[in-house]
Amino acid sequence: MKKAVCLLSGGLDSCVTAYIAKSKGYEVFTLSFNYGQRHKKEIECTKKIAELIKAKKHVIFNINLDKFGGSSLVNKKLKPEINHRIDEIGKIIPSTYVPARNTVFLSIALAYAETIDAEAIFIGVTATDYSGYPDCRPEYIEAFQKMVNLATKKCIEGNSIQIKTPLLNLPKAEIINKGKKLGVPFDKTWSCYLGKKLACGRCDSCLLRLKGFKEAGLKDPIKYKDLPNHI
Amino acid sequence: MKKAVCLLSGGLDSCVTAYIAKSKGYEVFTLSFNYGQRHKKEIECTKKIAELIKAKKHVIFNINLDKFGGSSLVNKKLKPEINHRIDEIGKIIPSTYVPARNTVFLSIALAYAETIDAEAIFIGVTATDYSGYPDCRPEYIEAFQKMVNLATKKCIEGNSIQIKTPLLNLPKAEIINKGKKLGVPFDKTWSCYLGKKLACGRCDSCLLRLKGFKEAGLKDPIKYKDLPNHI
Repeated sequence: MKKAVCLLSGGLDSCVTAYIAKSKGYEVFTLSFNYGQRHKKEIECTKKIAELIKAKKHVIFNINLDKFGGSSLVNKKLKPEINHRIDEIGKIIPSTYVPARNTVFLSIALAYAETIDAEAIFIGVTATDYSGYPDCRPEYIEAFQKMVNLATKKCIEGNSIQIKTPLLNLPKAEIINKGKKLGVPFDKTWSCYLGKKLACGRCDSCLLRLKGFKEAGLKDPIKYKDLPNHI
Repeated sequence: MKKAVCLLSGGLDSCVTAYIAKSKGYEVFTLSFNYGQRHKKEIECTKKIAELIKAKKHVIFNINLDKFGGSSLVNKKLKPEINHRIDEIGKIIPSTYVPARNTVFLSIALAYAETIDAEAIFIGVTATDYSGYPDCRPEYIEAFQKMVNLATKKCIEGNSIQIKTPLLNLPKAEIINKGKKLGVPFDKTWSCYLGKKLACGRCDSCLLRLKGFKEAGLKDPIKYKDLPNHI
């Protein structure tokens, strides 16, 4: 059975991506990161999702990116932006950008994939309804793939590892509809940057999620503290 | 003053590379990894070297690549090859290859460099007298650079971070001669894979080092348990 490492953040996109990998017949090895993020709620979500998807193995990898800081997601002295207008999101890279995060996560996934002889790495990046992070763009993923093709012993032997990004060009509503068809447990996913008891409904991540459910014509099963007027 | 992150393994090549960065006027931020390697001797060496080079800061970053395994450097059940003929080294990728190690290390260096607004990352890879690791080759470094140029917020703002590999095409003897001119403390470096009291003189890393000193016409100041007949 062909193997895939699936990056799981606890959010909606990576969960849909892992379900897509599963639906394509891969044996799924989920990989999540305890990287010094603001809250551990999303890590708890990854455990539940890994169980539901019947991952062959779920690894939670510790990496202290908070040792460097440089982002409101790993430095609690900084605060994620809230109350953006939905059409403002993605125009300017916000404080929640974590320097080189996807590069670090994909690199560790590559080390894991080569060790277990996996064919593919699945990552739920999307460059449509997104925060403008540079390491979510198609041209970045393409360059990462080219680097991977030269990086490993496996590639010298003629078998490179494929970076799979099934959501790359999909609007959030389409991601949600795709997830619904695959039976994705949206109630077990967590997108809010703040990690409080209820999703805030005001950070960029909540806003993009709410917009996606609205456009998909579906109700988001998680509870919000506030609901914005303009979505 | 322009800043550089310098990867420091405790070995000879990375030490010479850091001294080159310093000689080129960079403020040096040394970065070493406690990655589950066979021995901690090399990490102790990095501390001494960072002190001698007057690094602005020395970071020892923990990352458990031994959680994955896949190499005799991170899995103590496997053993590094010994007693190779010198002309055999680099022909076949040996068990000491650690899956995606340079990709992981460079990625973390990238996160650090972006956070402290460094211009460059220095890494002591060489593809001349080397073990044949795929992630030491010029084409790999070139592809990594292209990926970096698309990966960060800094590059969106028009300033990419440069991966500097001053040793890439140098034979070991030239690296040693260059180091000598720069006052590199060879006695504080450690190359042996085994990490015992004395360098073994038989692993690939010892053999390449001994060959380099011989060809440079210099005496290696560290002590060896065995000295091979054929070098």
